Amino acid sequence: MAGVRSAVRQVPGPCSHWNDDDADFIRHVLDRVGDKWSVLVVGTLEAGPLRYTELVHAIPGISQRMLTLTLQHLAEDGLATRTSYPEVPPRVEYELTPLGRSLLRTVLDLAAWAVDNHQTIQRHREAREVPA
Amino acid sequence: MAGVRSAVRQVPGPCSHWNDDDADFIRHVLDRVGDKWSVLVVGTLEAGPLRYTELVHAIPGISQRMLTLTLQHLAEDGLATRTSYPEVPPRVEYELTPLGRSLLRTVLDLAAWAVDNHQTIQRHREAREVPA
Repeated sequence: MAGVRSAVRQVPGPCSHWNDDDADFIRHVLDRVGDKWSVLVVGTLEAGPLRYTELVHAIPGISQRMLTLTLQHLAEDGLATRTSYPEVPPRVEYELTPLGRSLLRTVLDLAAWAVDNHQTIQRHREAREVPA
Repeated sequence: MAGVRSAVRQVPGPCSHWNDDDADFIRHVLDRVGDKWSVLVVGTLEAGPLRYTELVHAIPGISQRMLTLTLQHLAEDGLATRTSYPEVPPRVEYELTPLGRSLLRTVLDLAAWAVDNHQTIQRHREAREVPA
């Protein structure tokens, strides 16, 4: 097995400098920030502080469950804050932190790529379907 | 309800120009390209055509099942090709298409962000844990 393993060419890539101890957590972070709802919530928060209802309306298809969970994750990871103002009715706003803003360009690029290329991808899938 | 709805401020964001008919498929595309294994496989294929074994070794933690599935998805969507060379033993190589290459910068940015910020995120989580 050692012989087979050593015959595999070492390939550079995004993981080539990962420390073994950190790999699990880096993958976990990547899983969270690349999640489609996280991408869309962070991207929408570019506009500044937003209320929950504003986020629901700005992101078609998001369920209240997924929005709540995504906002919890963003707060846990220090990417967004939740601020409650003691008004009647109470006002709660969500806002990106500097760490969250540092992710903004990349997630907006990813969302823009999906918008720009979804029709090409659809055509690829249709072309692969063998006619009956 | 119409009154409550119309009171919600319209927020610009990545979804604000999505056509209703396309929204489902755009979210589906975003789900696929933001997936951590997709990000890492596309990012690793920057190196040029690679064999399956080279990909397995370059991406710590990926299972054969997830690598196979990810490569299938990339091929279905026109992001990567699978080429089989009739040699003994048979050689199969995976390579990004121009469409796949157009995604490269963004996924490498996302992976680099995860590497650069995972320790900060870890510290945020630890700081939120209330001591017993």
